[in-house]
Amino acid sequence: MSSLQKYQEAFQKNRKEIFEDYFTFLRFESIATDPAYQSQTLSCAEWLREYLSKIGLDVQVWQTPGAPTLFATDTRAGKDKKTVLIYCHYDVQPVDPLNLWTSPPFEPTIRDGQVFARGAVDDKGQCFYTVAAIKTYLELNGSFPFNLKFIIEGEEESGSPNLFPLIREKKPELKADYLLIVDSGIQAPDAPAITLGCRGLVCMTLTLTETHFDLHSGSHGGVVYNPNRALVEILGKVHDENGHILIPGFYDDIVPLSAEDQSSIDFSFDEEDFKTRFGAVPKGREKGLSPLECAWLRPTFEVNGISGGYSGAGFKTVIPAKAMAKVSCRLVPNQDPLKIIDKVKTYLEKQVPPGLQFQIEVHPGMGRPFRTHPHSQLASILMQAYSEVFNKACTRILIGGSIPVSVDLAEVSEAEMILIGVGLPDDQIHAPDEHFGIDRFEKGFLILCRAFELFGNE
Amino acid sequence: MSSLQKYQEAFQKNRKEIFEDYFTFLRFESIATDPAYQSQTLSCAEWLREYLSKIGLDVQVWQTPGAPTLFATDTRAGKDKKTVLIYCHYDVQPVDPLNLWTSPPFEPTIRDGQVFARGAVDDKGQCFYTVAAIKTYLELNGSFPFNLKFIIEGEEESGSPNLFPLIREKKPELKADYLLIVDSGIQAPDAPAITLGCRGLVCMTLTLTETHFDLHSGSHGGVVYNPNRALVEILGKVHDENGHILIPGFYDDIVPLSAEDQSSIDFSFDEEDFKTRFGAVPKGREKGLSPLECAWLRPTFEVNGISGGYSGAGFKTVIPAKAMAKVSCRLVPNQDPLKIIDKVKTYLEKQVPPGLQFQIEVHPGMGRPFRTHPHSQLASILMQAYSEVFNKACTRILIGGSIPVSVDLAEVSEAEMILIGVGLPDDQIHAPDEHFGIDRFEKGFLILCRAFELFGNE
Repeated sequence: MSSLQKYQEAFQKNRKEIFEDYFTFLRFESIATDPAYQSQTLSCAEWLREYLSKIGLDVQVWQTPGAPTLFATDTRAGKDKKTVLIYCHYDVQPVDPLNLWTSPPFEPTIRDGQVFARGAVDDKGQCFYTVAAIKTYLELNGSFPFNLKFIIEGEEESGSPNLFPLIREKKPELKADYLLIVDSGIQAPDAPAITLGCRGLVCMTLTLTETHFDLHSGSHGGVVYNPNRALVEILGKVHDENGHILIPGFYDDIVPLSAEDQSSIDFSFDEEDFKTRFGAVPKGREKGLSPLECAWLRPTFEVNGISGGYSGAGFKTVIPAKAMAKVSCRLVPNQDPLKIIDKVKTYLEKQVPPGLQFQIEVHPGMGRPFRTHPHSQLASILMQAYSEVFNKACTRILIGGSIPVSVDLAEVSEAEMILIGVGLPDDQIHAPDEHFGIDRFEKGFLILCRAFELFGNE
Repeated sequence: MSSLQKYQEAFQKNRKEIFEDYFTFLRFESIATDPAYQSQTLSCAEWLREYLSKIGLDVQVWQTPGAPTLFATDTRAGKDKKTVLIYCHYDVQPVDPLNLWTSPPFEPTIRDGQVFARGAVDDKGQCFYTVAAIKTYLELNGSFPFNLKFIIEGEEESGSPNLFPLIREKKPELKADYLLIVDSGIQAPDAPAITLGCRGLVCMTLTLTETHFDLHSGSHGGVVYNPNRALVEILGKVHDENGHILIPGFYDDIVPLSAEDQSSIDFSFDEEDFKTRFGAVPKGREKGLSPLECAWLRPTFEVNGISGGYSGAGFKTVIPAKAMAKVSCRLVPNQDPLKIIDKVKTYLEKQVPPGLQFQIEVHPGMGRPFRTHPHSQLASILMQAYSEVFNKACTRILIGGSIPVSVDLAEVSEAEMILIGVGLPDDQIHAPDEHFGIDRFEKGFLILCRAFELFGNE
């Protein structure tokens, strides 16, 4: 029988146990960003530590000022074999608004072949098929044909504030040849693809302050400079009519993808399907570029939140004392987050009318962009595994999102990196009714089992 | 003794009773806009009806679908005497945020010679010194040398939605020679002034909708047209760099004040004092115009509220499904609210990027601008009364705010109108710790007593 069939049979045989354990993992309310869930987060880490120990890995608990990081290894293959570092996270996003969940977020429920729960996909689902693949591979084969290092953090959803310094300290332990970030996905259920890169990210809060308190727009309208007016005027000057960002030097450091590399990536996009799913047409893009060229190869400046004055029911004729916006930039190679913050700040500050105070607060969790070579050995192995599991040719894609700590992890481990996973754009991660197809959980499991074998052929 | 002294002595004699009754009036929680306060609003109207009856007026209760309007008269003077119509309101603004009040908003408290309570000034305070002046005048003189009509509404703070149609029905009853709107003020404690006009007002809510639900700014940033971006771009194009409004035709119908009329109005403005009180410099004005020229003679377009996406603590990398702004225009003679709404709508709609849905909702309570002649008989009488009470020359001012129903009331009553009162810009009306100086309450009382006499000399 083919090696894939061996793992398929094992999955079917252990199916009940795998899902029982996956559901136990999902039931921990590991919302690490909220102090109210600290003990649940710690219990989740402890359960996972014990589980990884039981299946035969050496587990270290790396304490941090926040949620601990687990580091599990099996390095019996020895120095002349490759070392593979895998990254996942066990923390999850908050669940509000709770009333929009069909079933409770921490009581995993199966409907129509989908597991509904917070973390069903992101990232406990993807983490747990990885764990199940490790367990099954060891049960069937006794050992790995490579050295395994598995790092599972508990603060990804808060921007990994403690993992950034921690991995610098742990550089020797993290040394590897290959790095798999198992926190990504594919574009459609029947579209196997590996992900060659992600965008970087910086997040800022802008505040414009004018008066001691809100003023009456009758007495003072047309006299003081309304902070809302200043805010829309400033932010209205960020893009030109072709969607280009007007901040001087914003695009300076971009290294464009070579024509050859670009041709190896699948930029196909179904506009009709997009409209059906999201209700929108992709009209916010830069002139002359396709939707996925914009999402994957171009940086952005987005206003993620804006507020000032009264926006409840009815009307209040107020001139607010201050106005605020939350803005973020997605970055592409080789834009540097700190340089971009400087450029944004310099440009916006110049537009502030006299008399208003302007402040920029930079949020933690900034991340650099990343892109790997489309024809690397690691890419080939994963593409083969995806192709066999899906029984269909695997393509190469990028993502528009950001996994901030991944680039630092690649640097520290000195490994070749790739992003993998079987999430879908409409799994509703970070939203109510997050869900993961049981068939995709199995595919994720099989891809890893097959990749483990292929790492041994090197 | 001078006639002013007579009223001063009566005020001192009845001081305790006047303030007891004023405080009883303030204790009713007459927030007519909120259905939770309906019975308090009705009790307030009923108490006032009984009070006006007791002091000798004929009182009608004009029922509306909302709070009732009281109409109290003393027309014993007869047809060959002038008729004076006075307008006040007994409803008040909501009180939140409650935690910013030093003493409870409906428990009037005196500190440093000021009465602190919701409605202390606006408009229960100004209404009640009017009532006290009527009562005292009748007690001292037996009757009025003119016909008195006194209309007190209960929905001014909600834009008088029911009074507009009601006064059309009641046109015969409202016929008058002079109309006094007692809901205005002066610029400083020692600056007696009558108010010759106010600005008009239209309020609109703008909504931009893009997608079925909020999207992830990683996956979709740079692809869909962020409604926040569209909103800032649209609203950022309303003013040019000189503060002029770019909406075509916006200024077309303005009739400028004649040089002679302008010279009769006091436009003096203390920039240092303004900065101390409000923390702001008056830099939002049109180039080449002084602060009070902007506030009194020029129309505005203000963004009173703006919201879209996430603006809480931390950061969410979201592209909101929709964004919203509340905008209002203050209008000057002879701008028409409906024509302005059309022009605003046409201009903003043209700026909407393809793929976004744009909606404008017009709020009730729109009002036309108003300006009366600076040298009318009514103006002279009131200026004399103010001068005598303050023992200082009275000036003429305008206000930037709006009293929407006043213009309709002037039209229906066919009366010459003037706005009077003794409120100050920093009485914190509509805000926590609203307060009214006891000395100003007395001055308001005296101005009316003296004006009542002067109306008889005609």
